Amino acid sequence: MSTGVKIAIIGAGSAQFSASIVRDLCVYPGLHGSHVTFMDVDQQRLDRVTRLAERLSGELNADLTFNKTTNRDQALKGADFVLNTAQVGGHTWTEAQRSMAEKHGYYRGTRLHDFGQAAFFLDVARDMERICPNAWLIQSANPVFEGCTLMTRETKVKVLGLCHGHYGYRDIARVLGLELEHVSAQMPGFNHWIWLTDFLYEGKDAYPLIDEWIESRAEAYWAKDDFHYADNQMSRAAIHQYKLFGLMPIGDTPRMVGWWYHTDLETKQHWYGHLGGFDSEIGWQQYLDDMSENVRWVERVAMDESEPVSATIKPERSDEQIVPIINALVNDVEGLYQVNIPNRGQVIKGFPEDLVIECQAVVSGAGVRGITQPPFPPKLMAGAMIPRWHHAELLVEALRSHDRDMALLCLLADQRTQSLEQAESLLNEWLTDPRNKDVACLLV
Amino acid sequence: MSTGVKIAIIGAGSAQFSASIVRDLCVYPGLHGSHVTFMDVDQQRLDRVTRLAERLSGELNADLTFNKTTNRDQALKGADFVLNTAQVGGHTWTEAQRSMAEKHGYYRGTRLHDFGQAAFFLDVARDMERICPNAWLIQSANPVFEGCTLMTRETKVKVLGLCHGHYGYRDIARVLGLELEHVSAQMPGFNHWIWLTDFLYEGKDAYPLIDEWIESRAEAYWAKDDFHYADNQMSRAAIHQYKLFGLMPIGDTPRMVGWWYHTDLETKQHWYGHLGGFDSEIGWQQYLDDMSENVRWVERVAMDESEPVSATIKPERSDEQIVPIINALVNDVEGLYQVNIPNRGQVIKGFPEDLVIECQAVVSGAGVRGITQPPFPPKLMAGAMIPRWHHAELLVEALRSHDRDMALLCLLADQRTQSLEQAESLLNEWLTDPRNKDVACLLV
Repeated sequence: MSTGVKIAIIGAGSAQFSASIVRDLCVYPGLHGSHVTFMDVDQQRLDRVTRLAERLSGELNADLTFNKTTNRDQALKGADFVLNTAQVGGHTWTEAQRSMAEKHGYYRGTRLHDFGQAAFFLDVARDMERICPNAWLIQSANPVFEGCTLMTRETKVKVLGLCHGHYGYRDIARVLGLELEHVSAQMPGFNHWIWLTDFLYEGKDAYPLIDEWIESRAEAYWAKDDFHYADNQMSRAAIHQYKLFGLMPIGDTPRMVGWWYHTDLETKQHWYGHLGGFDSEIGWQQYLDDMSENVRWVERVAMDESEPVSATIKPERSDEQIVPIINALVNDVEGLYQVNIPNRGQVIKGFPEDLVIECQAVVSGAGVRGITQPPFPPKLMAGAMIPRWHHAELLVEALRSHDRDMALLCLLADQRTQSLEQAESLLNEWLTDPRNKDVACLLV
Repeated sequence: MSTGVKIAIIGAGSAQFSASIVRDLCVYPGLHGSHVTFMDVDQQRLDRVTRLAERLSGELNADLTFNKTTNRDQALKGADFVLNTAQVGGHTWTEAQRSMAEKHGYYRGTRLHDFGQAAFFLDVARDMERICPNAWLIQSANPVFEGCTLMTRETKVKVLGLCHGHYGYRDIARVLGLELEHVSAQMPGFNHWIWLTDFLYEGKDAYPLIDEWIESRAEAYWAKDDFHYADNQMSRAAIHQYKLFGLMPIGDTPRMVGWWYHTDLETKQHWYGHLGGFDSEIGWQQYLDDMSENVRWVERVAMDESEPVSATIKPERSDEQIVPIINALVNDVEGLYQVNIPNRGQVIKGFPEDLVIECQAVVSGAGVRGITQPPFPPKLMAGAMIPRWHHAELLVEALRSHDRDMALLCLLADQRTQSLEQAESLLNEWLTDPRNKDVACLLV
């Protein structure tokens, strides 16, 4: 038996994302018969993604139907689930914002582009309140933490943020040589700011195995240095953070914590290996190249009618939690997932109930229920959680109250800012850039 | 009718402080018959303060008795109230720590000396648990915020922090030309980090009067620039903070908020006037000179037997809240005071119950009851309160858990820190300084 739902994907031109969703829909028989609307501002990309989806579903007899639109209202109409994966202005605008910040003395840019993203997310959520108020909003575009918090505070939409970062614990297991099926892990926190609070191997605390690895094998591992740019989980920076905060940072966390790992390329290379990690000029360029390659790849697969799509995009479950969670909600298939949800009931102690935190949750037909965490150790709270919360509050409240000052305070809290004038001049240039007009009118 | 109590003053060599307490005891008949123990490590200063006190009490027939000691245990024995006003190592060690930090690139020093102070406060509180567990601890030495929080978390002692900073609202009234008796004000927050949430003149909101002053009279006021170093309440910095955070900072707050006002002397002079404010090399030197002058003055008054002490130290109530509060507690004389107490019952929303906050409180024989505040505006929470809380948590938890890393994180959160190495090298020098051995053994 299957329950067809209507899914709208905002930013569906991200071919890899859309292809992965469609593939998962194909392999979850309970969701056969669903309808997917692809929405993007790029008509050409939409065409390709839709063609790819139609062929894949057809080949796998998934009975999925599709349509495409550049009109958001149309996409949202009747939706049960809205997946938001959009990047406003694409990589071009993100990179332009980075260059602008670099000109003002901010190596590798600031987080100002998060304002534009979060403001856009709120727009989508408000449209949903109007058009499909009972739909779930599944947020995968960043910033998940700030974006989901903003939408939670400003709308009644059911917001669920999802990310891959928590799979980082698998990298730890791999590097330590542990069999994954005997590993269990908990890593709550804020999105991209999560910490391994529990790490068991065959039911026993496995932190001593990490300590042993650090003691006896870490130096050799770092010396090898054949890391992929995304390979930050067992970097020197991650281990330094573990020592500094008392728990292992997971997934994207080692990239995000600690301005002192990121002052220049040389410093980045010391902490993250020869590429300087994901966020260096080297690592990030490789990532952008990989993204472009992916787009071309999907294009080729979609258009090459000589071969079945399913020969390339195999009908196997992906790691993506989105479709399994939709299936859990729709068909009452209870399961454990890593989600970003409001902190209602103090899932994580000491933070507001309307802050969106990341935690494990039981998802079923009854909804999403976060698993209450023991309080974080004081060292982690004081050292890492409070300052990250601070940044989020500034961004969220700036957009809620349309307050330019709070964006300025964001920059003033950036360790690289050396004077009020420096922060003011970047903010002014950024706010007066015509490409930024949708945000500028919100920060007055 | 009077209720004699036993009061121990730790750091009683601070002659101005001790003289002010004794004077107030003389003018509160309800506390006549009390006994005061002066405790200090400086025997000569002790002698002078005791002599001064004896003469003053004798002249005013206050029936106070005194003794002096360099032994803390002895001072605490039988105490009903312990007043802690001590500065560990005096100004000499504070200034030495400042110079040390300046050598590592921290203009005008860091807050590292707060660690030594807070660690000492905790020592005193632990001694009280042992020797006089039912006594009130009245903390006036800084850091009141961190020190009181640390003692609250680590001991069962009744802790009450007191400060003069909240009287800053009177400076606002004076500059605006308002009659003080028609002004009412509320300024909760953390010590040295308080904000004018309510400001009424003749029962009406008086914030518009501040706005009007800024609009029409502020520039002329700043141009005059004949400010005393302590005259920061209506400085350019204070008004800038008001605009940035939405509420007027009160008392010492304008000195403390915003690293960007303090990057160099010239910047300080722009924001605080020609002396550069309290914390510039000019302002601070004047303050130190004034302190020395005070010591000499008290010395002269104490030793000059040709004239009654009370001719100089007149029997009038001082602004100091300490004795009135003791009187309120002991003789059940209900009154409103500005105090620093644990945030039990969420007097200030959104912060832990074991954090010591500053608020108005009703004090009487029943104890100290904080007046619950409406939540702070989001702009103030996000912009000012959370980052200040962050710093306090690092300091408090570093000392609770004996964790050097958290002291390092304090420095890493200092805007002037440009690299991990810079923070490490200052911390190392500071921890290995022999004068700092009592703290070094706590931060391992």
